[in-house]
Amino acid sequence: LSVLKELAVRYKYSVCIGRSHGVHAEPTTFGIKVLSWYAEIKRWLRSFEEAVREIRVGKIAGAVGTYHSISPKIEEFLLSSLGLRAEDVPSQIVHRDRHARFFSTLSLLGASVERIAVELRHLQRTEVREVEEGFSKGQKGSSAMPHKKNPITSENLCGLVRLLRGYALAAVENVALWHERDISHSSVERVICPDACIIADFMLHRLRALLAGLVVHEDKMLENLNLLRGTVFSGTTLILLADSGMTREQAYALVQQHALAALAGGATFQERMSSDPAVAQALGTEGLAQAFAIERHTAHVGTIFERVLGS
Amino acid sequence: LSVLKELAVRYKYSVCIGRSHGVHAEPTTFGIKVLSWYAEIKRWLRSFEEAVREIRVGKIAGAVGTYHSISPKIEEFLLSSLGLRAEDVPSQIVHRDRHARFFSTLSLLGASVERIAVELRHLQRTEVREVEEGFSKGQKGSSAMPHKKNPITSENLCGLVRLLRGYALAAVENVALWHERDISHSSVERVICPDACIIADFMLHRLRALLAGLVVHEDKMLENLNLLRGTVFSGTTLILLADSGMTREQAYALVQQHALAALAGGATFQERMSSDPAVAQALGTEGLAQAFAIERHTAHVGTIFERVLGS
Amino acid sequence: LSVLKELAVRYKYSVCIGRSHGVHAEPTTFGIKVLSWYAEIKRWLRSFEEAVREIRVGKIAGAVGTYHSISPKIEEFLLSSLGLRAEDVPSQIVHRDRHARFFSTLSLLGASVERIAVELRHLQRTEVREVEEGFSKGQKGSSAMPHKKNPITSENLCGLVRLLRGYALAAVENVALWHERDISHSSVERVICPDACIIADFMLHRLRALLAGLVVHEDKMLENLNLLRGTVFSGTTLILLADSGMTREQAYALVQQHALAALAGGATFQERMSSDPAVAQALGTEGLAQAFAIERHTAHVGTIFERVLGS
Amino acid sequence: LSVLKELAVRYKYSVCIGRSHGVHAEPTTFGIKVLSWYAEIKRWLRSFEEAVREIRVGKIAGAVGTYHSISPKIEEFLLSSLGLRAEDVPSQIVHRDRHARFFSTLSLLGASVERIAVELRHLQRTEVREVEEGFSKGQKGSSAMPHKKNPITSENLCGLVRLLRGYALAAVENVALWHERDISHSSVERVICPDACIIADFMLHRLRALLAGLVVHEDKMLENLNLLRGTVFSGTTLILLADSGMTREQAYALVQQHALAALAGGATFQERMSSDPAVAQALGTEGLAQAFAIERHTAHVGTIFERVLGS
Repeated sequence: LSVLKELAVRYKYSVCIGRSHGVHAEPTTFGIKVLSWYAEIKRWLRSFEEAVREIRVGKIAGAVGTYHSISPKIEEFLLSSLGLRAEDVPSQIVHRDRHARFFSTLSLLGASVERIAVELRHLQRTEVREVEEGFSKGQKGSSAMPHKKNPITSENLCGLVRLLRGYALAAVENVALWHERDISHSSVERVICPDACIIADFMLHRLRALLAGLVVHEDKMLENLNLLRGTVFSGTTLILLADSGMTREQAYALVQQHALAALAGGATFQERMSSDPAVAQALGTEGLAQAFAIERHTAHVGTIFERVLGS
Repeated sequence: LSVLKELAVRYKYSVCIGRSHGVHAEPTTFGIKVLSWYAEIKRWLRSFEEAVREIRVGKIAGAVGTYHSISPKIEEFLLSSLGLRAEDVPSQIVHRDRHARFFSTLSLLGASVERIAVELRHLQRTEVREVEEGFSKGQKGSSAMPHKKNPITSENLCGLVRLLRGYALAAVENVALWHERDISHSSVERVICPDACIIADFMLHRLRALLAGLVVHEDKMLENLNLLRGTVFSGTTLILLADSGMTREQAYALVQQHALAALAGGATFQERMSSDPAVAQALGTEGLAQAFAIERHTAHVGTIFERVLGS
Repeated sequence: LSVLKELAVRYKYSVCIGRSHGVHAEPTTFGIKVLSWYAEIKRWLRSFEEAVREIRVGKIAGAVGTYHSISPKIEEFLLSSLGLRAEDVPSQIVHRDRHARFFSTLSLLGASVERIAVELRHLQRTEVREVEEGFSKGQKGSSAMPHKKNPITSENLCGLVRLLRGYALAAVENVALWHERDISHSSVERVICPDACIIADFMLHRLRALLAGLVVHEDKMLENLNLLRGTVFSGTTLILLADSGMTREQAYALVQQHALAALAGGATFQERMSSDPAVAQALGTEGLAQAFAIERHTAHVGTIFERVLGS
Repeated sequence: LSVLKELAVRYKYSVCIGRSHGVHAEPTTFGIKVLSWYAEIKRWLRSFEEAVREIRVGKIAGAVGTYHSISPKIEEFLLSSLGLRAEDVPSQIVHRDRHARFFSTLSLLGASVERIAVELRHLQRTEVREVEEGFSKGQKGSSAMPHKKNPITSENLCGLVRLLRGYALAAVENVALWHERDISHSSVERVICPDACIIADFMLHRLRALLAGLVVHEDKMLENLNLLRGTVFSGTTLILLADSGMTREQAYALVQQHALAALAGGATFQERMSSDPAVAQALGTEGLAQAFAIERHTAHVGTIFERVLGS
């Protein structure tokens, strides 16, 4: 969380293109992206703490949980010395809904780490190159292709996540034990207790190192922002035109016509809009400039940060 | 929960055999079984309420979440009128870790319902018959075999649970959307939002009806308790012998010898123990009677109920 | 398979009750149960051999599979020396649909082993006791309860199966790698290749030992068969009555009335039917005897065995 | 398959960059990409046909499969009229390993469709734009952003695949029914039989339409191929230098130095290599030209196509 917070704050106003469907949409900032990861991991942490609280129980109550030869007081004393509470209604064991919740929560962590890792992999593709995994000094590239630097840590994380999903599945099937207990959960837990916890821990450490060493190319972000020749401002232009009194249909047709022409080459979208008399009449020069002002897109970044990080 | 509570209280002291590995272990009560379900569903409910709280968010913040043409104040106003909060750091959408947690929580509910349903199916087998699903008046048995009454509701529940696990899996894979959003989650959610919620709701209603109409055969419980000819008290006997000064090894050998003989037929375990001079010397008649006293096993039932239901 | 075959043949005509919904239905034989496992594992083996054939491929074709610096002839020569074929259309790697199929097939094996193990666990419950896991000489029972013998091997198998399902899930998510390959599958395969294969192998060895040492209580099977006081023959009686000209409704009402009365105690179902004039008129003494003849239920056992094992 | 074949043949020699880790590696052709999908779907089809063959069985053999009141001959006659065989060893039902295999096979289809869909989504991102989903005439773009054309069909497919995985999971849990049958599989199959089959069918139809209407930008493929300023030929250069007698270490250092310099700007990788005396001495002008010849990368395309499609 502290690494994510620092990264978010550092790039709070580093403008980059926001994408939906993998296609350029409208500008946002890299800090906002990172802050959304921070908020998501924080949500997960709350949920993890609840899951841990639910699993911090033990049981010393005899073969089927009736305390026939040990007093609940003794159980309480012994468990509390281990920082545990007594199971509400023990059977031969602590009930496995607690474990299922714990491992499901690790799987949910995996999904959120996957979201971060997938984003970083996208931003590292050759055609995008907005970020780069830090390479240690003297580290070679690919053995066969000396020019390559590969996002192998993010890819590694994506794989680990799949394992966590599998372990969670096994844990959920462990809940419905027969009567006061059958031992089918045991062979599962001997594997998933160490494996899922070690993988989750390893994953978080790798993610931390990856984020701490992340190289961010702000220049490339700006370059990509302009790739579509100004048409990423078509949404704001549309809204301002509609606000000016034009019908939405008229505005849409106008904007789409100039946007598609600009994408095909020649004058940019802004140039085309500037030289269209209908636009000039509706918005004026200043009004049009507003539609292309990056400041519209960063105006509320502060509000969002405050919402998440406090003043 | 109220049906479970009522059922637990009604059968609080209805003694039945506790089983581990499907094999008779030591006595417990049917009320304790039901109370353990009550406590588990209550744990789940807390977790569900947290999941619901996390998913009660909305988002009206523009195409990539920057509020370029709408103020966060307006979003807050509109969402609060729907009883929703704003997403912490919106992208084009509300983040899907929230939905993944929600559907995983339904899957965890399924696992706990499965534990109840599996227990009820076991208790309804021909050889056990400790409980029975209530049949409505005039309802026929099996069409081919007129003598049969089948636990079809509990079986039905076990199947529904498998579906919930599948839906949760799909929801977890929905988290790692590309950049500010891709729409791959949509085809999933069109199916799982109605299907998982309807199935969970249907499942809870059927479970409630099943529990409300459950027929409990206390006489059969006592009959089954004695099936092993008293050897289900071998554990308490062992402990009392060891307490009396005998080494654990000696006590174990003694108990096992008489237990296995009793299981093979002839005199019961209690009869054999009573007529063994070594036992008489160690425990005396009164001491031995204690080892076979059902009261040892129900002595703490009150404590457990109090722990869960309050005074 | 050879252990299953031997077990099936040995108990080919060992009559036991068949159960649906966990409730006594009609007689079958223990050999038929085992033969159904044999046939199922054999079906699986065919599917496994196909999966293995599909995964016996390799790839030596350069960084993206174009053979720019190595001839397909050399690849063929090298791979064939390892008993492999060339990938049809290699990318940087062999495609992962092959691995997904392999691990899914192990998960399907797990499901079939689970069916066997669950059946054995049911048959070992205290109230049923038709089979028993062989205990090695001198092996102690439960440490706390000297009378207990637990089906721990079958339970262990049920747990292992859950792990295989999780591994298969991860393998299926490995198929959709990016472009000519990303390395996210690697962290998954480092875990699941050894773990899933070792667990599947271990599982099959334990299952083999369990089946080879299985103790079958034919006397207990007959005892359980009669538990419902003859009503397990209500299905055949119903059919014979209907065949004799009675309407199905009349026959059903008649059979159900006597069956429910017999279940409640007193005279058995056969005794009650024998003394009912309507039955006597419809079937005659000999006809009624036929309805209760165990031979009806074993008449086609030979045909079924022949179908599966050949002459 | 026919659409894939046609697409593969049409773009057999359309050179594009091959990517590993999302990073440019070495040239390949778009036809090779498509052919790898063709081969994969064909592998799947074989496996699907086997799964269908295994599920084409039926069962008319009485309540627990003993044929006590019906002859196996009649079953055979009736089933064959439906194009079905008899279950090998029926219980009350056809065994569910057959269904589990069927639904697992649909899930494996999903994984292969996902590989195609993910590739198409990558190739449609703004920065790559090598292909485009065909838009119908008069179809509008995004409602908020008139410049956008989104790969919504490929995204839709990626979601559907997640559902198929969930259904397969439920089907695998259906195998281990109790004894001669319990009815827990029924509630599952009422949902997954229609839902999984309809989704798989819908998915294949959408995929077919998507591929049939796919717009391929060969010019953009070439443009992207040159994005790394010739360094995508560093692998072949490295091999030729090593072949010429230089040690691999020397060659690697030389190639990496010029590749990194070229990536930083100024002269291209080929220009830098051409003007390096050490290279000239090792390879000569003609030799160096070979290292940059695209023909090296397409030389075996014919062989690969022949391997898959026949002469």
